[in-house]
Order: sequence, then C-alpha cells, then structure tokens
Amino acid sequence: MMKVVALAGGVGGARMVDGLARCLPAENLSVIVNIGDDFDHLGLRICPDLDTVCYTLAGIANPETGWGLEGETWNALECLVNLGGPDWFRLGDRDLGTHLERTRRLRQGQSLSQICREFCAAWNIGCAVMPVSDDDVPTRVYTEDGAMNFQEYFVHQQCRPKVTGFIFDNVEQATPAPGVLRAINQADLVIICPSNPWVSIDPILAIPGLSSALAGHLTIAVSPLIGGKAVKGPAAKMFVELGIEPSALSVARHYGSLLDGFVLDQVDVGLVDMFRSEGIEVLVTNTLMKTQQDRQRLAQEIVEFASSLRNQQSSNISLVERV
Amino acid sequence: MMKVVALAGGVGGARMVDGLARCLPAENLSVIVNIGDDFDHLGLRICPDLDTVCYTLAGIANPETGWGLEGETWNALECLVNLGGPDWFRLGDRDLGTHLERTRRLRQGQSLSQICREFCAAWNIGCAVMPVSDDDVPTRVYTEDGAMNFQEYFVHQQCRPKVTGFIFDNVEQATPAPGVLRAINQADLVIICPSNPWVSIDPILAIPGLSSALAGHLTIAVSPLIGGKAVKGPAAKMFVELGIEPSALSVARHYGSLLDGFVLDQVDVGLVDMFRSEGIEVLVTNTLMKTQQDRQRLAQEIVEFASSLRNQQSSNISLVERV
Repeated sequence: MMKVVALAGGVGGARMVDGLARCLPAENLSVIVNIGDDFDHLGLRICPDLDTVCYTLAGIANPETGWGLEGETWNALECLVNLGGPDWFRLGDRDLGTHLERTRRLRQGQSLSQICREFCAAWNIGCAVMPVSDDDVPTRVYTEDGAMNFQEYFVHQQCRPKVTGFIFDNVEQATPAPGVLRAINQADLVIICPSNPWVSIDPILAIPGLSSALAGHLTIAVSPLIGGKAVKGPAAKMFVELGIEPSALSVARHYGSLLDGFVLDQVDVGLVDMFRSEGIEVLVTNTLMKTQQDRQRLAQEIVEFASSLRNQQSSNISLVERV
Repeated sequence: MMKVVALAGGVGGARMVDGLARCLPAENLSVIVNIGDDFDHLGLRICPDLDTVCYTLAGIANPETGWGLEGETWNALECLVNLGGPDWFRLGDRDLGTHLERTRRLRQGQSLSQICREFCAAWNIGCAVMPVSDDDVPTRVYTEDGAMNFQEYFVHQQCRPKVTGFIFDNVEQATPAPGVLRAINQADLVIICPSNPWVSIDPILAIPGLSSALAGHLTIAVSPLIGGKAVKGPAAKMFVELGIEPSALSVARHYGSLLDGFVLDQVDVGLVDMFRSEGIEVLVTNTLMKTQQDRQRLAQEIVEFASSLRNQQSSNISLVERV
C-alpha cells in the first residue's frame, strides 16, 4: 500500500484528506497543513486550517459550514458581543475550548506540531496531521485597498478587496515542522488537495525545503476549480484579479513542474487535450465532495490513478533502461 | 436619602449590595469591590468578585451557586478538558465571554475600572461599581503547606491548607481606582458587607489611602459569621486557624476602630451585651439572605439603623456643643 502525503488547506483539503483516511491504513497517511491563516484573536491562537482538517478527520466538523464543530453553541461570543467585543470572527463555545487549550500550551512552550499531535490523539485521529511549520508565517494579502492580514481580508472584509499579490511573512526564516520532511521523503505519492493554490497551498510550498523535498515524488493535484468556479472560497476570484483565466488548467500551470498528474472534474473534460499537450496526465471524474461516499470514492480513484502513473513511470524507466 | 458606599467581596457582598440597590436610588450607591482574588487563567484575566457583584446586580447570576451566570453552559471547558486542559477552575461559556472581552480591553490599554464601568452599562447596572484599584494586588495565602496564590488555595485546594497569614502583593505601590476616594468622601454611610474579613475586606482596606478615607464616615459592618459559622466560604475556618474564636464579636474586633455599628444575626443575640461593653452599637436581625426579599429587608433595616446612629451622633454632638 502506498505511503501518501497530502498538502491541505481548509474545507476542500479537509474533505479530501478525510476520503484518503477512509481508503488508507492510518500509518500510510500524513497530512501537512497550511498555517498561513493562523492568527491571534482575543488573545487566542487560532489555526483555522489545522482545526478544520482535524475536526473533519475526527468526525466532529459541522457538516453544513465545513468549518467549526457540529452541534456548536455560541454563548461566549454572544455575551462578548453584548459587552462591545468584536463579532466578525465567529468562535463557537466548543471551538473556544480548542483555542484556549492550544494557547495555554503554546504559552507553556509546547510547539504547534506537538500540540497538534496530542490533540489528534485526544480526538482519536489515526493518521499523522502536522502544521507545515512551527514558525509563525502569516499570509499577508496585497489588495487594491492596501495590504492586510489574511483573516482581515478573508473573514472581516469577506474577500471583497481585489488582490494584487501575497506575501508569507518571515517565510525565509521558517523551517518545516518535525516530521514534515521525513513524511515527504517516505511518500510514494503526494496529493495537493483541492485547496486554494494562492493562500492554502502556496504558503505550504513556500516553506524553505518543501518544494525541493517534493521533487522526485509522484505528485498529483486535485483541482479546486470546477468549470472555472471555486467550490468554496475566493480561488477563482483571485485568478481573475491576478489576470489569469480561472480554470483547472490554470491551477495545473500554477503548480508547474511539481506535477505528474492532475485530477479534474468531468465538467472540465473539454480541457483534457490541453493537459495532454502540456504533458500532464489527467484523471477525469466527479470531484465534487458532497457526501462522505464522494470523498472516499474520489480518494480511491486518485490512489488508483497514482498507481497507474507509477506503473507507467516504472515501465518507462524499464523501457529507457532496455534501450 | 443617604449616599452609601459598600465594600464588597464575593457572594455575600453581592447579595448585600443587591439588597441596597433595591432600597436606594442608583446614584446614591457606590460599590467598591475586592480585587485580591483576581488572577490570570488560560491567558484570561479573571475578576471573580467583580463579576459576582455585577452578575448579581444585573440579575443574571446563578441563584444556586451565587457565582457564575444563570442558565450557563459548559461546552468550552468540556472540550478543553478533553484535550488535557485544567479543570479545577470552572469557566462557563457565557462567563468566558466576559473574561475574553475584559482581557481584550486590558490588552488594548483600558483600565479595569473603565472596563467595569462600560460592562455595567451593558448590563444595565445603575449604581457605580468599581474595583478598589486598577493595580494588580493579588492576595497570597500563607499556609502550613507554604505560600500560594489565592485561587490555588481557594479553588484548587478547596481551602484545605491551614492558613497562617495573608499578604497583598504590591499593595504599597497600589493606588485607589478613579472614583473610589471620591465615593468614600461623599458617603454618609459605609457598609462593610458580610464578606470574608481576611481575604475580601482586608485587601480593600489595605490599599493605601482607603482606611484613612473611611475615618469620620459612619461605618457599619454586617457579620459574615452567624452562630460562629460562615454562611459560605472559609471565614470561620480562617479565624480558628489564626487562633481566634470565630464569632461576630471577633469580626467586629477585627475591624476595630473603623466601626460605628455592627449588624449581627438574631442567633447571636447573646453577644449584644459584649458589643455594648465595647462601645459598638448593634442591630440584631435575621442576616441570612436566602431570597431577594431577605436582601432588600436587611438592606432597609441597615439603612434605618444607620439613620438612627446618625441622629444619635448629631444629638451627641449637640449635647457636647451645649455643654
């Protein structure tokens, strides 16, 4: 059975990873999660993507929103807002328990990756989930209204400002979290989940050592765009604002030489020839993950696609060797 | 109508103050609250006595515990504890909203007294509630098991260690919060609520300038001990451990020359002669505040007792003048 590393952002990444966790033995799956969205709010350290991935894997995520917890209550926030506190970032009561305990541990000197490991144990998550780095590498969004922190752009301003670019603050000084490079080095397959390329996957790839570690590993991306539209979030809008046609092909070109294969939705079957002409192998299927069955089926298909690519690569190598 | 200042600790103080608020015009009542219990927990600034007083005055306190909020939920704490966080200090979800917003404002540079004023406005509290100081003056409890922070003693160790004394850290550098001395200077009556003398009232009186400001103002204490027992908390146990008989008389002697009058429970009517022989005027009544009616009746009786003492004092002065 293949060892798989998944690079994941928020909701789309979490659903993909959940599908993979249902196909693979726990010890064969490692998830490397974006930390660019992480920020401090109300004195609490909040790691939205890490939590979305973990809550989803633990089976406790809110199935409607995709983020936050199922059966959540909002009493703390309601009382805080009544006292004049900020209401733009929604924090449920149960979710607050996560942030309070994470913040307490960080203040005690534990690293984010260690905390994540222990939280996963408490949530009975079998696979390895790790932040890409234990360093603080916040995404700053450059827009026509000026530069702003990611959550300011994403939640407070609801992605309204037109983006002009992104910076991952302090990324040059950052190092991969313990376990990240080892997981990649042992991987037979790297899956870039259907997350936002600009603000979910790029902040992972930008950590020094990450991209070079991926080289030589079979890498497949799953398109976050279906018919040129994002299932969720501002990915398509960002492509447009940056002057790029929003399409699965643009996503593949964004990742460039990292990719060996690409998974695109059946809606985009018309793009297959263009992918082939650029030398990218494709799997065309239903990529929309509405149900748990969708997630698992898609994950299974991707693993099979990867196996076929691997066999193809080794037979190519054999051919080359035979020549 | 008399202008009244109440010095208050937690539950007993809050109930007394609530009774007073039901007898007096809002502008005639100022409440000065103990801050010795205040502490940092989970990165949050927690002010137990201030909150108990405010929640009670706002009519949102939990009527069973006396502290915390009515109809509280415990989801954040439950999730935090599931992740390995500390469970010894109970924080409800609504209550967390208070602590989060207070901590946010303190970090922004607002003072505790300013925050308290704005919270009181949000909670529709008419009278003035103020922390005795905006400085941090934490009570440290000296015990046979060593010195410990107040909440460590009070909540975590449930008052089990035998006390040997108390220190109010940094009290020499502390100053009264804005409004505290003005309220005392304008007061016709100061009521020392039925709160723990050692760890609720003493930390108020210890703030430089407080005791001297009280001099010359008609001051009445309400006994927190009934039949030698505390209605709630470790007051009687502390008297015993410090080698003093736990009784209403010991409470009166503790406050010494500050007092003009004392309110003791009918259970302790046998002590009246001893009070008289020490020159302390007494009101004997039912001091147990079980219901809202109890609070209001007791407050009314104390105000009337104070009026009679005032009339008596002024006739004494007249007598002296006439001699």
